[in-house]
Amino acid sequence: MSYFPNVEPIRFEGPESASPLAFRHYDADKIILGKPMREHLRMGACYWHTFVWPGSDVFGAGTFKRPWHASGEPLAMAHKKADAAFEFFSKLGIDYYTFHDTDVAPEGASLAEYRNNFAEMIDVLERKQEQTGVRLLWGTANCFSNPRYAAGAASNPNPELFAYAAAQVFSAMNATHRLGGANYVLWGGREGYETLLNTDLKREREQLARFMRMVVDHKYKIGFKGTILIEPKPQEPTKHQYDYDSATVYGFLKQYGLEQEIKVNIEANHATLAGHSFQHEIATAASLGILGSIDANRGDPQNGWDTDQFPNSIEEMTLATYEILKAGGFTTGGYNFDSKVRRQSMDEIDLFHGHVGAMDVLALSLERAAGMIENDFLAKFKTERYAGWDGQFGRDVLAGNFSLADVAEYAFSKQLNPQAVSGRQEMLENLVNRAIYK
Amino acid sequence: MSYFPNVEPIRFEGPESASPLAFRHYDADKIILGKPMREHLRMGACYWHTFVWPGSDVFGAGTFKRPWHASGEPLAMAHKKADAAFEFFSKLGIDYYTFHDTDVAPEGASLAEYRNNFAEMIDVLERKQEQTGVRLLWGTANCFSNPRYAAGAASNPNPELFAYAAAQVFSAMNATHRLGGANYVLWGGREGYETLLNTDLKREREQLARFMRMVVDHKYKIGFKGTILIEPKPQEPTKHQYDYDSATVYGFLKQYGLEQEIKVNIEANHATLAGHSFQHEIATAASLGILGSIDANRGDPQNGWDTDQFPNSIEEMTLATYEILKAGGFTTGGYNFDSKVRRQSMDEIDLFHGHVGAMDVLALSLERAAGMIENDFLAKFKTERYAGWDGQFGRDVLAGNFSLADVAEYAFSKQLNPQAVSGRQEMLENLVNRAIYK
Amino acid sequence: MSYFPNVEPIRFEGPESASPLAFRHYDADKIILGKPMREHLRMGACYWHTFVWPGSDVFGAGTFKRPWHASGEPLAMAHKKADAAFEFFSKLGIDYYTFHDTDVAPEGASLAEYRNNFAEMIDVLERKQEQTGVRLLWGTANCFSNPRYAAGAASNPNPELFAYAAAQVFSAMNATHRLGGANYVLWGGREGYETLLNTDLKREREQLARFMRMVVDHKYKIGFKGTILIEPKPQEPTKHQYDYDSATVYGFLKQYGLEQEIKVNIEANHATLAGHSFQHEIATAASLGILGSIDANRGDPQNGWDTDQFPNSIEEMTLATYEILKAGGFTTGGYNFDSKVRRQSMDEIDLFHGHVGAMDVLALSLERAAGMIENDFLAKFKTERYAGWDGQFGRDVLAGNFSLADVAEYAFSKQLNPQAVSGRQEMLENLVNRAIYK
Amino acid sequence: MSYFPNVEPIRFEGPESASPLAFRHYDADKIILGKPMREHLRMGACYWHTFVWPGSDVFGAGTFKRPWHASGEPLAMAHKKADAAFEFFSKLGIDYYTFHDTDVAPEGASLAEYRNNFAEMIDVLERKQEQTGVRLLWGTANCFSNPRYAAGAASNPNPELFAYAAAQVFSAMNATHRLGGANYVLWGGREGYETLLNTDLKREREQLARFMRMVVDHKYKIGFKGTILIEPKPQEPTKHQYDYDSATVYGFLKQYGLEQEIKVNIEANHATLAGHSFQHEIATAASLGILGSIDANRGDPQNGWDTDQFPNSIEEMTLATYEILKAGGFTTGGYNFDSKVRRQSMDEIDLFHGHVGAMDVLALSLERAAGMIENDFLAKFKTERYAGWDGQFGRDVLAGNFSLADVAEYAFSKQLNPQAVSGRQEMLENLVNRAIYK
Repeated sequence: MSYFPNVEPIRFEGPESASPLAFRHYDADKIILGKPMREHLRMGACYWHTFVWPGSDVFGAGTFKRPWHASGEPLAMAHKKADAAFEFFSKLGIDYYTFHDTDVAPEGASLAEYRNNFAEMIDVLERKQEQTGVRLLWGTANCFSNPRYAAGAASNPNPELFAYAAAQVFSAMNATHRLGGANYVLWGGREGYETLLNTDLKREREQLARFMRMVVDHKYKIGFKGTILIEPKPQEPTKHQYDYDSATVYGFLKQYGLEQEIKVNIEANHATLAGHSFQHEIATAASLGILGSIDANRGDPQNGWDTDQFPNSIEEMTLATYEILKAGGFTTGGYNFDSKVRRQSMDEIDLFHGHVGAMDVLALSLERAAGMIENDFLAKFKTERYAGWDGQFGRDVLAGNFSLADVAEYAFSKQLNPQAVSGRQEMLENLVNRAIYK
Repeated sequence: MSYFPNVEPIRFEGPESASPLAFRHYDADKIILGKPMREHLRMGACYWHTFVWPGSDVFGAGTFKRPWHASGEPLAMAHKKADAAFEFFSKLGIDYYTFHDTDVAPEGASLAEYRNNFAEMIDVLERKQEQTGVRLLWGTANCFSNPRYAAGAASNPNPELFAYAAAQVFSAMNATHRLGGANYVLWGGREGYETLLNTDLKREREQLARFMRMVVDHKYKIGFKGTILIEPKPQEPTKHQYDYDSATVYGFLKQYGLEQEIKVNIEANHATLAGHSFQHEIATAASLGILGSIDANRGDPQNGWDTDQFPNSIEEMTLATYEILKAGGFTTGGYNFDSKVRRQSMDEIDLFHGHVGAMDVLALSLERAAGMIENDFLAKFKTERYAGWDGQFGRDVLAGNFSLADVAEYAFSKQLNPQAVSGRQEMLENLVNRAIYK
Repeated sequence: MSYFPNVEPIRFEGPESASPLAFRHYDADKIILGKPMREHLRMGACYWHTFVWPGSDVFGAGTFKRPWHASGEPLAMAHKKADAAFEFFSKLGIDYYTFHDTDVAPEGASLAEYRNNFAEMIDVLERKQEQTGVRLLWGTANCFSNPRYAAGAASNPNPELFAYAAAQVFSAMNATHRLGGANYVLWGGREGYETLLNTDLKREREQLARFMRMVVDHKYKIGFKGTILIEPKPQEPTKHQYDYDSATVYGFLKQYGLEQEIKVNIEANHATLAGHSFQHEIATAASLGILGSIDANRGDPQNGWDTDQFPNSIEEMTLATYEILKAGGFTTGGYNFDSKVRRQSMDEIDLFHGHVGAMDVLALSLERAAGMIENDFLAKFKTERYAGWDGQFGRDVLAGNFSLADVAEYAFSKQLNPQAVSGRQEMLENLVNRAIYK
Repeated sequence: MSYFPNVEPIRFEGPESASPLAFRHYDADKIILGKPMREHLRMGACYWHTFVWPGSDVFGAGTFKRPWHASGEPLAMAHKKADAAFEFFSKLGIDYYTFHDTDVAPEGASLAEYRNNFAEMIDVLERKQEQTGVRLLWGTANCFSNPRYAAGAASNPNPELFAYAAAQVFSAMNATHRLGGANYVLWGGREGYETLLNTDLKREREQLARFMRMVVDHKYKIGFKGTILIEPKPQEPTKHQYDYDSATVYGFLKQYGLEQEIKVNIEANHATLAGHSFQHEIATAASLGILGSIDANRGDPQNGWDTDQFPNSIEEMTLATYEILKAGGFTTGGYNFDSKVRRQSMDEIDLFHGHVGAMDVLALSLERAAGMIENDFLAKFKTERYAGWDGQFGRDVLAGNFSLADVAEYAFSKQLNPQAVSGRQEMLENLVNRAIYK
């Protein structure tokens, strides 16, 4: 049985194609900077938005009537959902997927049921992966939707909740390992607070750090070679989330000696909710050595919540991709489409429209960013701009050879009178546009 | 000569006073939690907004016609400004003040002039302090207003700018030390970027860290006993500032091994520009061990820039003060009014209205917060809320006695089914109101 | 059977009361400015947040396990819900309530079922009102939650949706009329757009205006004496809602000649989402002659969505109430608590904590605002500030006696050189604090 | 004497040009949709940002050292500034310019001096226009920078300030008329409030309306054929500005019967400060019949103030231009670059970089938008989406043939059960990208 009977596998047809469901730019095996597009991008489709979410929002019920959502015995429906998902991945021609434990298997009424259901479905996923060649970009555990997690998981005031979360993360890590996942992600959906009036920040951070350490140790114990990733988000559903942004996560990791063990999975929409540009978050994480992977989507600049729309700005994505390429590109990471069709896009075909357009956006952005690497006018400009620091005085300062008094004396004795020079922002912006619109 | 001839020294007259220029709540020597109000609050008036700013904004020229701003030989005017400032401090009855180097002395046309002017004025300030008993809460250097600092100071692409800034900070630290200042503050006004297109984040952070290390070393070298403070701000005038918020500053300090040496000076309006509540920033800094001092003001919740209004919410300040008291209160820190009268409040008397009202707000907030300490219903609630972690299992987990597998096994074997319990946010909010409106 | 067996009716016990569930300030029959508190405030509890919402959010399932939510035959459960609601209203001692059609009766599978269910429940509500004395502040129709309304109701591209909404609004207006409701409210939850790419703004506004006109005509036809109210909101769940704020609604009403027929129901949290203070929205609506009623709640200043928290700032509510009193107070309007307990406040008792605290906040704010009316220092200041306009020149200008050339000539010939005078913002803020914290 | 001796006139060289100072897309006489590019775009450079602003911001002094800013007798400097401006316009090859009265002539110490200075400089501008062929897109008066306007101009509590503003606007309108200006613009920079505590909203709006009426009457009296434009802005420097956004301005115009007389000049950065997309503001104004002209720039999505950066997003500008073309294109309006180089872009050459890049952005956006008009897939989709309203029932409803009861009866009797259909947002977004990146 097919869930998308009228959809042919999506193919690359080139920029001139008139088909709304063909790739115009994503040519998986095209070589860009010495590597096929697909290896640069490592794109993944997510289970939750595309196969689990019913099209509900906080003001209304689900608008989607997916065949695989029809009522039925939960485990049987999970099988159907997996059928739909892998048919979709295959027809879309996407190489990776991502999931939460409770996306793929019913939670059940107890931990025993949870374990059994999950085990059964991991078997299914493993077979599906083999049959289709689709691989797992990362797995994760949903420790935020069940009412029990109302006050958080690892940071919960009740240690039994910590233990419950540990049971899920243990299971999801093992499953990810078995399925050959390239990374394991932790999004602390409710690791934060609603009100400081009832919250002990210090205690909760320590609980969280303990959890992270256990996760890292477990990785080594089971021989998982992937990367552990934290996904920063500033708020929502919480009033404040501890993993606010990349700089905050870095401080947390550093405080607990985890900065070599855990990297960040940066989401575009989370970046903007935190008051940063997407490019900023990527560049910051790269400069701190913790850039791991990307959740590709976009927010609405006028809406203050996570809209998780498909990325559609080549202008924004080109700059983001340039930063990623400058940081060496992805090793285990990739671009996961943590993106959902609008609630009004209730037809199954809309799932294809969303993903096909987004994959083309990433592909074209990769081409443009690669052009910016080949003719790296930004790097050239920066080298010249900071050239003074490569002189003797600059090197001595940075090497710690001078005290404040030494440097002050240098300034006073030479009667320094340095002046600002143009940063040429407008010229550089024009050059970027020139690289995009050639 | 008097600059405020019609203003009598402000006195405490109690809540019933009908005078618009009397303290209704600030009774400096009243004992609160075993200490006089003045020692809890350590309030300071700032030189820049009150004696330097002409009432200009980005769309219009200054509206203030201060006698001490009248045109004249710059150094002579600096003397008049100091006269006005200390007359104001004395009549206001405030214990502390704060300044930038270039607030109190003319920059001059060269570093030599700068040094001479500054030295002369520090002599003046020292005499003024002796005469009036007003003390220095902190000093700082203005390394952002002069056009030369357009691209930053320590993080500037030109090392000569770094050196120039070092000359100013060296001078301002020495002056602060000589004047018995309780702290030294660094606000990195332009330590950030306008565009990532011309910016090397990693390099600039390293420059900044080098500068901080030199500042800390200099402190020890000269025997300054005060605290070195960084003032976080997320943006403005920069597009992005490196000292975004307390958590970001903590990560920076930790990265460079400075977290024992430098604390933060938290400004209410900077907290809200960063997407946080003022209480959050204080609680976060306290939980990270880096709470140093406060810039007391408020922003406008609907305006996206630093309005630096006088604090006037007892509701907000009570919670902020509660956090400060819980963290042990200030040692070297205090509340500096980084607050300015509105551009339309152009009369000298408005400076008194602004400060008198704000001092009363802090005094009443202190009283209310002290009440919340004496009957610490929040602490009691939290203790009960986290009580589970004081049990054997919780202590073992935090002590690192268990692996992820151990804890998962604990959950599986016990078939844990923990449920959320009420966080009682509404009840706690009511109790806080009860403590404020008694 | 009781749903709140352990709760005694809430009573006024005065500010000294130690009970967490007593009124400290709300003394219903206390005379304020010549009228009992209850008649000033006309407070209402809402059905939807308190009796319908299960404690879900966009990231998680409901945490509430209300006895009246237990599974069962929908109409039977609606009866239980009504029992719970009116027991709650009575024990709380609140005079009014508010509802959507689908809050009180099951939607059913067809319009016929909808009509029957709703009719049965209106009978129930009528009896409950008689038994308890609780009255209806306003009714409304939910034309946004059902998936059919994904693209709006009156502004839907499909006229059958317009008709369906008309059937609901017709029913809800008639029910409101029969139940003696004081107002009828329209919140255009999805009357807006997700993307301009598929939206015809002009056409949708015309549909909306046609709907409003029909609603107004129906009011007269059935003899409903209440006020028709539109509730502005800027966005959420839509990307943009047509009823953005009071000024926008005024322009819409004026465009279609409805400004004498429809007023606004202003919600605090919607005001702040629109970039305004609550006080601003009230003052603006009052100045435009369209202030109708209030949805009393608060948002989180750091979160960009509708948190609908209980109002707990006396500082904010005093200023809001002052504006309402200056506008003459409410006639048909009142304060509806469009407020919900936090998802973590899952106990039934939390519903009482939320409402009791909020009612006290309104009561104390009323007392403080009344004090500001009795000694109306703001009005006095304004009168003096604008006094120039009461002179001959000012009156002539406003009367239209002068052309631009006349007025320019007046300025040129007199060589006018007017100067700004202090607006005394800080002094006025201090006086407001003095009125609140006496 | 030349102010830009090293700059050759900017020429169209086509997309392949390697020159940083050539047009790659702006080919002034190229025919697009039957009209030369230049007639579609009617681009203007502004006097204030480019020739007046010294590169200062609220935290620092000016970084620009323009030869025409050098100290000197004010009127002599105004002549130099005009020389520089028209040399710039000519070399840039831009057809229009815009100015405030006080940009082009010194204010002087009295209204008499103001009048004389302005008259002298209008003579100069007239000659310059003749010599160069550069035309005036619009003039305006600066009634916000002088300290006297601290509390507003027309909305000032002092009627003499109203008169003073009238003198300026009278002069600026007459000058604009004489110079053949295509429009006259009013930006109410301080027509708003700092605090509601001292503000009478109703009174101030009436003053403002009176002023607008006088302006409109004056237009007819002097035979000015251009359009009167109000420029909406939500706040800054005020806490709240009365001309918040297009919908608010429409309501104001409608309230005072001015909606046929005044249109809006929409600025991209003001749109986003008001919580709207630029496209939204244009589409809204067009749908209300008040779209007049554009201030082309961009804001920073993460900064809450007016950054007035040069437009550089073809993605955003294509959609904006599409809306303008759909509305019939500009008649008197155009695209004014209310854009400034960054404070760090202090070289004169940066003024060229900014404008050349922006002109190319508009040109390419025009080409792309024209493509979207030629193959108007959006219009086609909308026509189909709303087709139901063209049926008998829809037409009857909109014609007012049915009452609410009629329509409800229609729904009940037919047992309507309409369902939502897909809005195809993702597909439409893909088609837009396809039109941009062809």
